[in-house]
Amino acid sequence: MYELLKSINTPDDVKKLKNDELESLASEMREALFNRLTKVGGHFGPNFGMVEATIALHYVFNSPKDKFVFDVSHQSYPHKMLTGRRNGYIDDEKFSEDSGYTNPEESEHDFFNVGHTSTSIALAAGLANARDLKGDTENIIAVIGDGSLSGGEAMEALNVAGEMTSNFIIVVNDNEMAIAETHGGIYKNLAELRETKGKAVNNLFKAYGLDYIYEENGNDIQSMISLFNKVKDIDHPIVVHIHTQKGKGYALAETNKEAWHWTMPFDRETGAPTVSFGDGENYLGMTIDYIMEKAEKDKDFVVITPSMPGAIGLSAEKREKLGSQYMDVGIAEEAAVAIASGVAKNGAKPLVVTNMTFIQRAYDQISQDICINNNPVTMVMNFCNFDGLTDVTHLGIFGLAAFTNIPNLVVLAPTSAEEYKNMLSWSVDQKEHPVMILIPGNQVSHREADDNFDRIDSYKVEQKGEKTAIIALGDFYQRGEVLAERIKEELGYTPTLINPRFASGIDSTVLDGLKSDHSLVITLEDGILSGGFGEKIASYYGTDKMMVKNYGLNKEFYDRYDPETLLREVGMTTDQILEDIKIFHS
Amino acid sequence: MYELLKSINTPDDVKKLKNDELESLASEMREALFNRLTKVGGHFGPNFGMVEATIALHYVFNSPKDKFVFDVSHQSYPHKMLTGRRNGYIDDEKFSEDSGYTNPEESEHDFFNVGHTSTSIALAAGLANARDLKGDTENIIAVIGDGSLSGGEAMEALNVAGEMTSNFIIVVNDNEMAIAETHGGIYKNLAELRETKGKAVNNLFKAYGLDYIYEENGNDIQSMISLFNKVKDIDHPIVVHIHTQKGKGYALAETNKEAWHWTMPFDRETGAPTVSFGDGENYLGMTIDYIMEKAEKDKDFVVITPSMPGAIGLSAEKREKLGSQYMDVGIAEEAAVAIASGVAKNGAKPLVVTNMTFIQRAYDQISQDICINNNPVTMVMNFCNFDGLTDVTHLGIFGLAAFTNIPNLVVLAPTSAEEYKNMLSWSVDQKEHPVMILIPGNQVSHREADDNFDRIDSYKVEQKGEKTAIIALGDFYQRGEVLAERIKEELGYTPTLINPRFASGIDSTVLDGLKSDHSLVITLEDGILSGGFGEKIASYYGTDKMMVKNYGLNKEFYDRYDPETLLREVGMTTDQILEDIKIFHS
Repeated sequence: MYELLKSINTPDDVKKLKNDELESLASEMREALFNRLTKVGGHFGPNFGMVEATIALHYVFNSPKDKFVFDVSHQSYPHKMLTGRRNGYIDDEKFSEDSGYTNPEESEHDFFNVGHTSTSIALAAGLANARDLKGDTENIIAVIGDGSLSGGEAMEALNVAGEMTSNFIIVVNDNEMAIAETHGGIYKNLAELRETKGKAVNNLFKAYGLDYIYEENGNDIQSMISLFNKVKDIDHPIVVHIHTQKGKGYALAETNKEAWHWTMPFDRETGAPTVSFGDGENYLGMTIDYIMEKAEKDKDFVVITPSMPGAIGLSAEKREKLGSQYMDVGIAEEAAVAIASGVAKNGAKPLVVTNMTFIQRAYDQISQDICINNNPVTMVMNFCNFDGLTDVTHLGIFGLAAFTNIPNLVVLAPTSAEEYKNMLSWSVDQKEHPVMILIPGNQVSHREADDNFDRIDSYKVEQKGEKTAIIALGDFYQRGEVLAERIKEELGYTPTLINPRFASGIDSTVLDGLKSDHSLVITLEDGILSGGFGEKIASYYGTDKMMVKNYGLNKEFYDRYDPETLLREVGMTTDQILEDIKIFHS
Repeated sequence: MYELLKSINTPDDVKKLKNDELESLASEMREALFNRLTKVGGHFGPNFGMVEATIALHYVFNSPKDKFVFDVSHQSYPHKMLTGRRNGYIDDEKFSEDSGYTNPEESEHDFFNVGHTSTSIALAAGLANARDLKGDTENIIAVIGDGSLSGGEAMEALNVAGEMTSNFIIVVNDNEMAIAETHGGIYKNLAELRETKGKAVNNLFKAYGLDYIYEENGNDIQSMISLFNKVKDIDHPIVVHIHTQKGKGYALAETNKEAWHWTMPFDRETGAPTVSFGDGENYLGMTIDYIMEKAEKDKDFVVITPSMPGAIGLSAEKREKLGSQYMDVGIAEEAAVAIASGVAKNGAKPLVVTNMTFIQRAYDQISQDICINNNPVTMVMNFCNFDGLTDVTHLGIFGLAAFTNIPNLVVLAPTSAEEYKNMLSWSVDQKEHPVMILIPGNQVSHREADDNFDRIDSYKVEQKGEKTAIIALGDFYQRGEVLAERIKEELGYTPTLINPRFASGIDSTVLDGLKSDHSLVITLEDGILSGGFGEKIASYYGTDKMMVKNYGLNKEFYDRYDPETLLREVGMTTDQILEDIKIFHS
């Protein structure tokens, strides 16, 4: 098994294979994909579709002299297998050696650590610019999926490419899908180009000033080799539009492309996931329940997402049911947020849904388009927690630093099911504030909660005590509860426990109230300390006698870490904090 | 004078005018533009070009029921004159009543406070979406300049518009210019469309799935009226491409479009500015000198800007001289930053140039494309200072909060000419760090400075003293010097004065060194406190006896303020700080 694949140590080895061997190699690579993905999960559809094209790329071009940049890395696994990293796919012991993304630390054949979409054309244009400055002559090849084209960064870069005058090859891997279905006017043009085999007179890429070539047989190795040979060493920018089949080689994935964009570990026979998260209640389910009920009774309510209905698990069936109350703008965070501002301004009630790491792309639009205008947009963000996604490109730990410092934006960090639901329905219906709600990453917990958040920045004192006050934000509230309990047990007094709820503000009444009978305030937050929640508290007490100790993560790009180990490293396990408290109070 | 204009209290009054009166109104409006712009300055070219089209818009549509959204507001002055705000143009006493941007607080005919480009299509799409949800039927009209089309947010929104199915009118005001010349492949297509009077088969807007109509005579009122009548109440999205002349009606501006995009107060006869900033040395001049010298001796050096050569005053002549070492990517901050990352990765030396407020748009790209990959890109930012641009949409005061919390990014805040020049040349040549340099907004000052910044996050103790330590960042260093002097004079001891230089890190050696003989640390910074520099110092000393007082601005969207008054409001004049110190030490 994997006989040919095992012979590929560098891309040079691909060039030695005969045509029929290349075909066999493709089969082995699909088997290798199955081996890894059934066992650890990962991006499925895009990789299965790109096997043949990737073989052809390495057959024709000379990596790493010629340079490939794979957009968002979703379709980079075949490339990894052919560049010395097959063991991450065929040797179960070595899965962890390879990340799910391109990574220069893994291989000289990767140039960027990339996990957000729509970046490959710009990054590659930069490589090409430097090549020209230095007088070098290698090929620069950007690979981008059709779904990623809708992102502003990709289109900005297409526009730049249209003015370049040297070698630059943009491979558009058109599998007729984004993560979910594609959305937007350009996809009509892409369909027309596919239908006319690239001959349609109206052509998005030509309108960007680019040369263009089309190939229908994106899953045929020989067609791809011949195509890439045509454009190799070309002296100007060209778009190479190839048509591939997402999920190619696995019937279930070919049929249900959205479900198989990314997969959990699964049973190859049935396609059923082999791990379970329990089917009890969870925060995403609550979010969906809220959305469906709200949409039914309030026709002004609309859900807007930049191609991430999956951020809350909103199924195609439910989207269908929402009808015009659901708007997928394609991978386009900036537009999503600006459109939401317009929706709010004209009196309707927008709810923006995506992951925390992706909304970063709309930082300016949240500040300028929403918050300067103070329009009541609600944004619910998934994966804000440090123990959710741990790939460096998908961390949620920067959200507090990014968004709690934007004026007018109310950032809410719920700590229980009741609080989350109350916050959601309060936010969507109020007309005074832009609001961002951090979906809890914890197991669901229940606690009686206020249903009024109008008193902005009011913290909730959940337990009044003495000496030490624990201000435990959002997902770390439960750790605060445990710490409070341990203080009582081991240090013999009842500390005050505060659920701030508002991550973006200071409750001076509560904070001032602590001064008389507390000497230590501890803040716990689920993110980097730098620019986050706790530092504001430290600054508030700066000239008081109150000691303040902020617990949180360092300002670092952590990558694929074990969450509990990380907590220990930064000294914020309950045991470590208890030891600190003893010292502070000694 | 202004006889007709004075009769226009609402857009309804425009509709009552006869054809020849409309022509006279246009002349009066140009006179009114001259009146304001010669005296207070502002956006010139875009407004002079849009007089006729704006009259026609208000003649045909019914604002505010029908809703106009003007991109970046550069071309909104004629609209303001016709919506009850003529006095801001014809009555010198009332200039200050109108901001230079659209503003819902000024008028019900404005829907957004907007000052960044490329937002109008998305914002208007949101208005349209809410209209449809509510079952209303008004026209929604986005107006966008050709230069703004290159921004990702605009193209994302064009893509969304291409899928909309109800009334939506996108007026593309094509004056063949961005702020500087336009850049990118789409402008070849726009030129082709102009040359063929809209008939070219290849059509960017149609490739986005949009209906399209062209009108050559964008400065002819009757042509415009007839055009807008054709699309009024249309039942689907359409791009209305009009050709106007930037600076129309002022020969100097028609000829030199870039210089007259925005103007200082000027003499109408000669075009010469009537205010002077002195011609002594300044930080922008230093930047240009550095660039020209560096480019000449280092062919790997390249300047990249998202259409903002003006951020450092880089003239067309100098850009010409830089040749391939200058890259204007169009208004496209995301691509600018990602391209710079690629340039650095491939071994060349990129310098990104723009204003602090605009680089916000590349927040995600700075984090992901540059900093995760730790590529040595240098970004020099202008207008980081609180007393530079005071329009709410152009504030530099959020830069520290936005960018000092991104891992791996070194943010440098120089305090003198020597330091700035050393930082610039160190940063461009080093290969270890992404760096952002805040161009000082102060008058140039001189001081001996280190030429080595390799010891990242090392603060410089400029004066060693006792009791009180002043950590004065960047532009506020000089205020720190004054404060130190006053403490010596009035409180009778010499305080320590620290120039941190690194805005993004903590120098624990220096901070720990203060503990033995200081009881108060004061931080001064040129930006909002929330998420900024001082809070990190407060957190550092959280459990020590050291008192820390952070001075800076509140987390607020200040608008058109007097800088010195604002300082007093937040309590950070030298007198106020001195009073505080007396109390802290009492």
